Amino acid sequence: MSTHVVIIAGGAGTRFWPAGRRARPKQLLPVASQKTLLADTVDRCAGLAPPEQTYVVTNEVQREATVKECSTLPEGNILAEPHMRNTAAAIGLAAIEVVRRDPDAVMVVLPADHVIRPRERFVSIFSAAAERAAATDVLLTVGIEPTGPATGYGYIEAGDVAAEVAGHRAHTVKSFKEKPDAATAAGFLKAGGYFWNAGTFVWKASAILSAFEEHLPGHHAILQKIDAAGGGSPDPDLYATFENVPIDIGVMERAQNVEVIPADFEWDDAGSWLALSRLNEKDAQGNVVRGDHLGLDTHNCIVVSGEDHLIATIGLDDFVIVHTKDATLICPKGRAEEVRDMVARLKEHGRQDLT
Amino acid sequence: MSTHVVIIAGGAGTRFWPAGRRARPKQLLPVASQKTLLADTVDRCAGLAPPEQTYVVTNEVQREATVKECSTLPEGNILAEPHMRNTAAAIGLAAIEVVRRDPDAVMVVLPADHVIRPRERFVSIFSAAAERAAATDVLLTVGIEPTGPATGYGYIEAGDVAAEVAGHRAHTVKSFKEKPDAATAAGFLKAGGYFWNAGTFVWKASAILSAFEEHLPGHHAILQKIDAAGGGSPDPDLYATFENVPIDIGVMERAQNVEVIPADFEWDDAGSWLALSRLNEKDAQGNVVRGDHLGLDTHNCIVVSGEDHLIATIGLDDFVIVHTKDATLICPKGRAEEVRDMVARLKEHGRQDLT
Repeated sequence: MSTHVVIIAGGAGTRFWPAGRRARPKQLLPVASQKTLLADTVDRCAGLAPPEQTYVVTNEVQREATVKECSTLPEGNILAEPHMRNTAAAIGLAAIEVVRRDPDAVMVVLPADHVIRPRERFVSIFSAAAERAAATDVLLTVGIEPTGPATGYGYIEAGDVAAEVAGHRAHTVKSFKEKPDAATAAGFLKAGGYFWNAGTFVWKASAILSAFEEHLPGHHAILQKIDAAGGGSPDPDLYATFENVPIDIGVMERAQNVEVIPADFEWDDAGSWLALSRLNEKDAQGNVVRGDHLGLDTHNCIVVSGEDHLIATIGLDDFVIVHTKDATLICPKGRAEEVRDMVARLKEHGRQDLT
Repeated sequence: MSTHVVIIAGGAGTRFWPAGRRARPKQLLPVASQKTLLADTVDRCAGLAPPEQTYVVTNEVQREATVKECSTLPEGNILAEPHMRNTAAAIGLAAIEVVRRDPDAVMVVLPADHVIRPRERFVSIFSAAAERAAATDVLLTVGIEPTGPATGYGYIEAGDVAAEVAGHRAHTVKSFKEKPDAATAAGFLKAGGYFWNAGTFVWKASAILSAFEEHLPGHHAILQKIDAAGGGSPDPDLYATFENVPIDIGVMERAQNVEVIPADFEWDDAGSWLALSRLNEKDAQGNVVRGDHLGLDTHNCIVVSGEDHLIATIGLDDFVIVHTKDATLICPKGRAEEVRDMVARLKEHGRQDLT
């Protein structure tokens, strides 16, 4: 069995504005450590595959920064979409590249901007999934054991145990559930057997291409053309014809040969600035600080600043403050989600230069 | 009668940090309008004296910026102290310069960093004071009619009316009172006849020099030496020997020939960032904004930023946010006084470059 890792790095930066920008999305920011989320993800995957079998799918705008951030990977393993066409297209593009190199490869697909700890548990679970995938043609997903009735994630309803591999259980999948309301989420948690859909997949590259042929034939036809043109950088006009559809809806919810392996590792989708407080050590005042900060009576804040700029705060509790060269954000932690609205407002005002 | 105006521009910038710095004190900041407080003061005084009879006393550090800000005044009228030695020395330095030019001059002394409106009322009251000073050797102060039981100012207890001049009354002064506690301030307000000490004086230049001779003979001796050396830029070593004493304590509280003219104009000592809210028009959300700001659900804030930097706020009420090139301050309005503590802390931390 030969495992290839595909890291999907197509995110936007809107919820991490003003540090996050179109050219510097979430995965290119240091959120969970002093390294970027992408670099953390590449590090984490070293336990699954060697650098020459580790790929990153990004887009043309972010390509240069992505190559720089993945200095341990061969530059040819950074695949750049000419247009962003959602996860089905990105995964298909990677799959044809992987199959070209190794027709029997098992492919692990991971978002670049999630945090998974500890690394040993991550490697253990994904190795088991890879072992299961190598032995079958099933499409596996790794589902996160819920730690609460979250309404921000989709859920996977597990069925019977299909196999036990290296101490982990692969279940059949009864259904995929959209983001639930609070009562439904509470019901899932009470019933058990529901797992968060984290967008992580394990399958043979040939198996996912067969699934494209069956469930997304339009995608499959385009992928065939890209493959026939020799792989590598796809033609932008051709790429633009991909339907904009996520892999979950386009393939996973339609396929019958889907399994889920529950995972009990720490998982965080780093969905907003609040992730910095969850994922980093706090100082004695409960603050998480990146850069230069002097606080008087300042507690439980997130303060991010460049080295040459002091953020001075007096009497602040539970605030997010992010300084960049051309913009500074200040908001209470409870309103960090509204950073997206700020970015939308900036666009309305014709200030794309700041987004 | 020939009136000369002396503007005392020796303030610090600590309560307006980070915009206020050692080299850019409060009077060099735009607080009450788009102009600096000093420029506003120079404009206001044009109704009392012509430019060649208007002086600014500053110090060597702030000299260049002060000259630039007072482009309507002759550069020789900007007097720079080689050391800061409080108001008695600064006023003495100006007095010998004024007497050299006009032995009979009446001298109006004003802080550079206060706001007085409307200008017509200012001119009316100070012209009356100048008329009274020209006719006598009394030392006049203009006292502000209290609008509340403020504890942040000294008070002047007025006695009988000594004279009526051009519709204004000059009272004898019974006593000067230090900043009172709340109960005492309330008592002053109830009793009536107490006025805020705003550090504004009117006297013949020769009369204040006589008062120096009587009450601050040490100052008088140094001033004689400066005069003998030809005036202008005083010798730094000589200047350093001035006792550090304010004119109120050194002269006004000791002299018997003191009078106060009550003033009913709008007066604001612009003591902290909150002055921006008091003195400037607010937008529809109650914010006072200088520079680039985009607020979502942001009300009653003071936002100051450079033109090339956006301050983006979500869900803030009653905050002060001040961005400069190397530092940003964020604090609730209610804690704006603590900006001084922040500056002190920076000095403790060896970060004088930011003060």
